[in-house]
Amino acid sequence: MIARVHVTIKRDVLDPQGEAVAGALRSLGYAEVAGVRVGKLIEIDLGATPPEDARERVDQMCRKLLANLVIEDYRFEID
Amino acid sequence: MIARVHVTIKRDVLDPQGEAVAGALRSLGYAEVAGVRVGKLIEIDLGATPPEDARERVDQMCRKLLANLVIEDYRFEID
Repeated sequence: MIARVHVTIKRDVLDPQGEAVAGALRSLGYAEVAGVRVGKLIEIDLGATPPEDARERVDQMCRKLLANLVIEDYRFEID
Repeated sequence: MIARVHVTIKRDVLDPQGEAVAGALRSLGYAEVAGVRVGKLIEIDLGATPPEDARERVDQMCRKLLANLVIEDYRFEID
């Protein structure tokens, strides 16, 4: 069972890494780039965890370690 | 139009950041964690780019800047 966690910077928080990537893309000739946000994609191999437990456990992992809830949002899917 | 690019480390390449996250999760009591891989999630706002051009342009961006094809894979969706 694999959990895929997407951690993204909240809309109203500045993302300097995204700004740098947007600037680099524009300087490469991609003038259509209006903005870039860079987040994390965390894949967790949960072994044989029962599906009914996995959702609650992964949600806890996000809150305790994987996301900084002050400046980041998270969402995940399990399959 | 938004492109969501997922950049992940290839399966056979060591991922020290993922190892560190896996170790931290286990030390928090999540013994079921068998492994973690950490990648990037890059959201690109493409403004009013015509959909028929967007796929090819984003694929180029990935190859030129966003992914290091020696050690990383990428995939993206556009909507």
